[in-house]
Amino acid sequence: MTRPAMRTDGAIVEATADAAMSAAIDAVIDAAIQEVNHRPRDRMGDRFRRVRRQSQVIAEPLSAEDCCVQSMPDASPIKWHLAHTTWFFETFILERFESGFQAFHPQFRVLYNSYYEGVGEKFPRPQRGLLTRPSLEEVQAYRADVDHRMLLLIDAMEAGAHAGGPQERLRAQLADFLALLELGLQHEQQHQELMLTDVKHLLSINPLRPAYQDLPEALVGGDPAELPLQWHRIEAGVVEVGHAGEGFCFDNETPRHRQFVEAYHCASRLVNNDEYRAFVEDGGYLDPALWLSEGWEWRKQLALEHPIYWQRDASGHWSEFTEYGLQELQPHRAAVHLSYYEADAYARWAGARLLTEAEWEHAAGKMQGSGREFFGVAWQWTSSSYAPYPGYSAPQGAVGEYNGKFMVNQYVLRGSSSATPLNHARLTYRNFFPAYARWQVTGIRLARGG
Amino acid sequence: MTRPAMRTDGAIVEATADAAMSAAIDAVIDAAIQEVNHRPRDRMGDRFRRVRRQSQVIAEPLSAEDCCVQSMPDASPIKWHLAHTTWFFETFILERFESGFQAFHPQFRVLYNSYYEGVGEKFPRPQRGLLTRPSLEEVQAYRADVDHRMLLLIDAMEAGAHAGGPQERLRAQLADFLALLELGLQHEQQHQELMLTDVKHLLSINPLRPAYQDLPEALVGGDPAELPLQWHRIEAGVVEVGHAGEGFCFDNETPRHRQFVEAYHCASRLVNNDEYRAFVEDGGYLDPALWLSEGWEWRKQLALEHPIYWQRDASGHWSEFTEYGLQELQPHRAAVHLSYYEADAYARWAGARLLTEAEWEHAAGKMQGSGREFFGVAWQWTSSSYAPYPGYSAPQGAVGEYNGKFMVNQYVLRGSSSATPLNHARLTYRNFFPAYARWQVTGIRLARGG
Amino acid sequence: MTRPAMRTDGAIVEATADAAMSAAIDAVIDAAIQEVNHRPRDRMGDRFRRVRRQSQVIAEPLSAEDCCVQSMPDASPIKWHLAHTTWFFETFILERFESGFQAFHPQFRVLYNSYYEGVGEKFPRPQRGLLTRPSLEEVQAYRADVDHRMLLLIDAMEAGAHAGGPQERLRAQLADFLALLELGLQHEQQHQELMLTDVKHLLSINPLRPAYQDLPEALVGGDPAELPLQWHRIEAGVVEVGHAGEGFCFDNETPRHRQFVEAYHCASRLVNNDEYRAFVEDGGYLDPALWLSEGWEWRKQLALEHPIYWQRDASGHWSEFTEYGLQELQPHRAAVHLSYYEADAYARWAGARLLTEAEWEHAAGKMQGSGREFFGVAWQWTSSSYAPYPGYSAPQGAVGEYNGKFMVNQYVLRGSSSATPLNHARLTYRNFFPAYARWQVTGIRLARGG
Amino acid sequence: MTRPAMRTDGAIVEATADAAMSAAIDAVIDAAIQEVNHRPRDRMGDRFRRVRRQSQVIAEPLSAEDCCVQSMPDASPIKWHLAHTTWFFETFILERFESGFQAFHPQFRVLYNSYYEGVGEKFPRPQRGLLTRPSLEEVQAYRADVDHRMLLLIDAMEAGAHAGGPQERLRAQLADFLALLELGLQHEQQHQELMLTDVKHLLSINPLRPAYQDLPEALVGGDPAELPLQWHRIEAGVVEVGHAGEGFCFDNETPRHRQFVEAYHCASRLVNNDEYRAFVEDGGYLDPALWLSEGWEWRKQLALEHPIYWQRDASGHWSEFTEYGLQELQPHRAAVHLSYYEADAYARWAGARLLTEAEWEHAAGKMQGSGREFFGVAWQWTSSSYAPYPGYSAPQGAVGEYNGKFMVNQYVLRGSSSATPLNHARLTYRNFFPAYARWQVTGIRLARGG
Repeated sequence: MTRPAMRTDGAIVEATADAAMSAAIDAVIDAAIQEVNHRPRDRMGDRFRRVRRQSQVIAEPLSAEDCCVQSMPDASPIKWHLAHTTWFFETFILERFESGFQAFHPQFRVLYNSYYEGVGEKFPRPQRGLLTRPSLEEVQAYRADVDHRMLLLIDAMEAGAHAGGPQERLRAQLADFLALLELGLQHEQQHQELMLTDVKHLLSINPLRPAYQDLPEALVGGDPAELPLQWHRIEAGVVEVGHAGEGFCFDNETPRHRQFVEAYHCASRLVNNDEYRAFVEDGGYLDPALWLSEGWEWRKQLALEHPIYWQRDASGHWSEFTEYGLQELQPHRAAVHLSYYEADAYARWAGARLLTEAEWEHAAGKMQGSGREFFGVAWQWTSSSYAPYPGYSAPQGAVGEYNGKFMVNQYVLRGSSSATPLNHARLTYRNFFPAYARWQVTGIRLARGG
Repeated sequence: MTRPAMRTDGAIVEATADAAMSAAIDAVIDAAIQEVNHRPRDRMGDRFRRVRRQSQVIAEPLSAEDCCVQSMPDASPIKWHLAHTTWFFETFILERFESGFQAFHPQFRVLYNSYYEGVGEKFPRPQRGLLTRPSLEEVQAYRADVDHRMLLLIDAMEAGAHAGGPQERLRAQLADFLALLELGLQHEQQHQELMLTDVKHLLSINPLRPAYQDLPEALVGGDPAELPLQWHRIEAGVVEVGHAGEGFCFDNETPRHRQFVEAYHCASRLVNNDEYRAFVEDGGYLDPALWLSEGWEWRKQLALEHPIYWQRDASGHWSEFTEYGLQELQPHRAAVHLSYYEADAYARWAGARLLTEAEWEHAAGKMQGSGREFFGVAWQWTSSSYAPYPGYSAPQGAVGEYNGKFMVNQYVLRGSSSATPLNHARLTYRNFFPAYARWQVTGIRLARGG
Repeated sequence: MTRPAMRTDGAIVEATADAAMSAAIDAVIDAAIQEVNHRPRDRMGDRFRRVRRQSQVIAEPLSAEDCCVQSMPDASPIKWHLAHTTWFFETFILERFESGFQAFHPQFRVLYNSYYEGVGEKFPRPQRGLLTRPSLEEVQAYRADVDHRMLLLIDAMEAGAHAGGPQERLRAQLADFLALLELGLQHEQQHQELMLTDVKHLLSINPLRPAYQDLPEALVGGDPAELPLQWHRIEAGVVEVGHAGEGFCFDNETPRHRQFVEAYHCASRLVNNDEYRAFVEDGGYLDPALWLSEGWEWRKQLALEHPIYWQRDASGHWSEFTEYGLQELQPHRAAVHLSYYEADAYARWAGARLLTEAEWEHAAGKMQGSGREFFGVAWQWTSSSYAPYPGYSAPQGAVGEYNGKFMVNQYVLRGSSSATPLNHARLTYRNFFPAYARWQVTGIRLARGG
Repeated sequence: MTRPAMRTDGAIVEATADAAMSAAIDAVIDAAIQEVNHRPRDRMGDRFRRVRRQSQVIAEPLSAEDCCVQSMPDASPIKWHLAHTTWFFETFILERFESGFQAFHPQFRVLYNSYYEGVGEKFPRPQRGLLTRPSLEEVQAYRADVDHRMLLLIDAMEAGAHAGGPQERLRAQLADFLALLELGLQHEQQHQELMLTDVKHLLSINPLRPAYQDLPEALVGGDPAELPLQWHRIEAGVVEVGHAGEGFCFDNETPRHRQFVEAYHCASRLVNNDEYRAFVEDGGYLDPALWLSEGWEWRKQLALEHPIYWQRDASGHWSEFTEYGLQELQPHRAAVHLSYYEADAYARWAGARLLTEAEWEHAAGKMQGSGREFFGVAWQWTSSSYAPYPGYSAPQGAVGEYNGKFMVNQYVLRGSSSATPLNHARLTYRNFFPAYARWQVTGIRLARGG
């Protein structure tokens, strides 16, 4: 049994070779190479440069100190993100495709391995913030070096593809290269979102309440106009879920398959701060009947009475710690930084529930295009545990550890958030976090029975 | 929105009154009462006596000391089980239906409340084993007293039902009573299984390796004949899942609804000790590539190298701690007491996977009846997280805490085990435990893609 | 206070073979053997019977369940105490002196080894309460068997001693036997005190507040008359501390040595409940300035606002959980069950301090004999960390683990308590517990500068 | 070793107002003021500048990242040390003596309060490393500002003292000022030692093994010549312990008082790496008979087999992580970074013991002056628990929290180490750490009975 494991911009690449599929795969690779041949040289290089540059942009407002520290085991230092994403290209691409490869630094293989058991030893995750050396400057040098070599390699690969019909061996190699390159860029984009949420968590602990950046003019006084919440009815039926066709996706979005959904209603927008505040002020955090048992224990142990970044002053006025520092709570913005437990409790209080991921994907497909906040505002918790799709299998080798091994005790989030890179969202994208996670930009879209 | 919350032997009872449904419900209650009228008096009493007696039978081989102690927070003392199941009848039935109700002991309401926040304070679960008082004898007296009063009440209820056409109010009351009575008996049966697994865990910690009971003649030398594992192919399609029709079920089995399953193969029997031993001896516990990331951390932290009740002597010979004490490992018996992590790792090693619960229910319905070990051997882990069925809602009041609030970070087990009471199994039954749980009689049924 | 006939300190228990000492040691052994020769046969047997019987008396009011359970890792089950003290005689005496010795049960060597690394494996301390088997009955049989064999051995040893002048080898053997016999009996008496305090802690957790025994007539309404607290001035000087001369002592009381104490005042009695209540009601538990830093963290973490067994009702009335169940707090009884942290904070609040152990021993020697509560009321925390006396060395072999290896991070308590066996107190006795311990009968005697 | 001109123990820091003492105190203040009058202006300012500068020197080789991070709760970031020592002067001196005082930053009072409950809220110690803001640069600005204001104040105070005979009120104020100034400088010197040991611990965790500084020429190949260990016998007698006379000391060194020490032998030098290695290679870390019970549990839990900064390569060769990076273990240098547990176990293995602090102070006084390593090599664990001297009382107010509140469950270390500022050592100095601490430069001086 075999299936495509991941796709590149214009190419699907096989992770496992299966005779029955190989003709179809060949065709796809042909198409990919075709595209390489017909587009202006350096397009791949451009994209590589653009994505890599974006990580630098995110780090720019931060000091070396800000970039070094880790506020909790779930988060990583900015400097570590910068190095790890570079390590990914060095380990999975340069080491394999660059002739005369030499590691930039022999110990970085261990220091910046996140969780790939197949690559060997890893520096312990909760200690990432203790690595004051290499310095931020040295990590920047590491990035520059790998970028330079990657661009040379991309150039050589493109040149090879342009130079006449590729041989069998070259074809396979190029396909692998393209797939891994795309994976590396998508991987870096995932870390770009984590950089923003991790540093926000770090700054939030500081009693000085430092801002990551200044409040843009555009946002001053900028609570958006109120959108009334509407319910869209969706009929029961067999729907298709998961990725198919052109374009990149992660292995966990495949294979596309059928699911049956009973009729349901989907909310037209996310729960906003005003609505969530009503839940808080109604005693929602103090009523066990509203909570999952495990969520209630979690809430009690941490003595939570509101979302992580909210605070109430003596006169009952609410503020929220944001990337712009402490700001007045804006009633019509989406309530964010909620755990699954909080999302679920709110839904129960509101007489509703969360969507399953099949429901979400189906509704988003139908309702999209009219500013429904499916993308770009907040990841939306679904009630679906993160599990393999029927027929899923992880790619071979260390890269196969990317997704599959996390498929237990996590919940799927759909859509994308204000922290997600602009072109890093997809109808079929499956984000996932443990139920207690609340440092991501996560919110609530409600559902109701049919 | 409303739906039946639970059903009794011969009656479906409404937890919430909804006009649209009420005619149908009326009919069901009529049927139930009809049945009461036409069957010999005391049938309900008989059943009550039988189930309650069974708990005593389970406790019989045990000393007062055995019954008092708690081996871990997940387990409870036998004495606590005996008292808590009694408390359930006292709190949810006698307190409501018995005229002139007086609590047997005012503090038992707190001592024996398991997790019902709606009932009030609870004695902390991890300290249940510290309650040397009330003594086992006093708990037996508590049981006797509540049994006596319950039987009087059952008698009175039956008499009321027989005495002419019941009035509206009486009808509703009788229906409630029947529903709660059945729930109490099913609840007691669930605890009967826990009594067996909890005491097994307690005895397993004792270096004397005490047997719960003597090995029956029938089992001496009794490794069953080998059944070759076969794969049954099941076609893709929309299937119905969940309980419908006559007979009791828990609220979490409802409502019956549709799911789409892609084609798959289901194993004809459970993984046996011989097969699991091969996994162990192949280094299965030492290869991170076989494990979910969280499972690997769990395994490492506990330094596990085999199932909880297995032990290997110096010469490599395997034994298993059983209810009959330490016994030679029987190769053709099902491998049991496995966590979800272990089941998942084994499946990956074997080139297979676990079933989803929809797949399990559908396969069991099709394949049942030919000794396929669906029931009575071991609960079978599914890859389905425990979640509400579409349209599910928990009953009102404290009884509503029975199932719904546990629907996060647990995995569904299907079938039933050698420790399950004989008439306490059902095609649609949803058992659930956290992924690390391994003190239940839990095993593996494999699946493969279509 | 009468003393046991044998002493062992400088002679036998202390195994440092020092030529200069050997003549003195010989003399002591001679005296011991002399005494054996001249007293009526069976006196040793009588004492053995009496001490062993006392443990049974303590267990008498308790059920098998009460005897089995362990309320915290610091405490042990009564059944375990009964078995462990028996194990001590079996392991350290019978195994060595009984011809044809056979262990009562091969696994008891592990099960009932408390902390003797030299004896081999130990069953983990925090799991002692999980040993429902052997049953209390079997442990009683174990006691009966060892008692029987010990009495036969004592008889044989006495007969040997009476039968003419013992040879060199016999002399040494007899001396060892007598020393170990006495150590075993003293050891059992130490456990008798722990039995009372451990079971009190267990019962205190039970919301039913069970009494260990009925309140004796004599104590009804029995708050003692108020004794005004007086300060006794003691002059500065070199004092002798530690055991010397006849009579048993533990190794940690030796050698007797000199210390210099500056002038000080010693309180005539212990702090009573009325005084301690004033501290509590003055906010003593809420003012960090009164506490050692570590004590303050401890108090905060446990959210303590009063002693462990005190409770205040809605109207501010204080009760205390006692061996007689919950009783009104008696103002003129000594405040007990205090940790070192609490004792130290109280002393600071009272403008005083605790005594050092040299001060205590010296004051007790001078002030004794006039009902000063030095003995029989409550162990008195000293400000002295538990450390070896100058010249101390632990005995050879496993018995040497009795005291020395605990000499870090514990504080010395002096005197004896209401739970101490009557003839188990001594001016030089050094009890010791960690600073957080409060389940022992521990109180406060104040001191002030000279 | 020159001493600061002021002393504060019996006079100023010690606030116990005792009539009998007041004449003596007056005399001391007179002497202090006298000295101020007769020495050249600005001597105090020079000393202030010198000590403050030294902290900067220590931080110089470190990056802002190195200065920001905290490797464990026991350690603090360099930046925090730089700020906290400044806070000390700002809070305890400027706030009180500067007219028109304004805090440099209102939140620094909380951020840089270490443990003074009397000052108010504190930022949680384990999170000190999360304070990426204020930046190192801002902390340097804070230092510069406080230094400037302190020097102005010192100048004004000196001018006031010189200007004719001070009045009663002025006298007291000046005395307080001088005492607090000296305390602040001594406090800063204590932190200078911690800066070195804290950053060493941080760097040690980094797999790159970064050096704090380059190995000086002088030390290359520089294992010192072997000094044979000799035993100095010291006779029994009453000795005086604690500080008296001129010169600064901390409150915990007072009052000077008498103790009796029995005769003993004191080792002429510290245990060296060669000797300690023999202990390690003899299985010293694997034999419970050598360890205190608590030490053994500690060792087992951390799975220790050698000192914290040692490592052994495959061929059995030992290296040590030092401030110069990883270096070959030098056999004749003192073994350092040992916990009390390790020191005690080593002593037992060597047939010796640790000194008490009275023994140490007495021996150091007698043996000093001939390169005996009492000072400047490694702090020496004593077997004395950290406790108040007879007659000790802590100063009033927040400054009184400096020492007294830590007097429980810590052990006294005597001497000074290679990391101690040169003029920050004293015969009577009492350093103290918990028994598990091993990140300080701590070693072993052996003792034996008389």
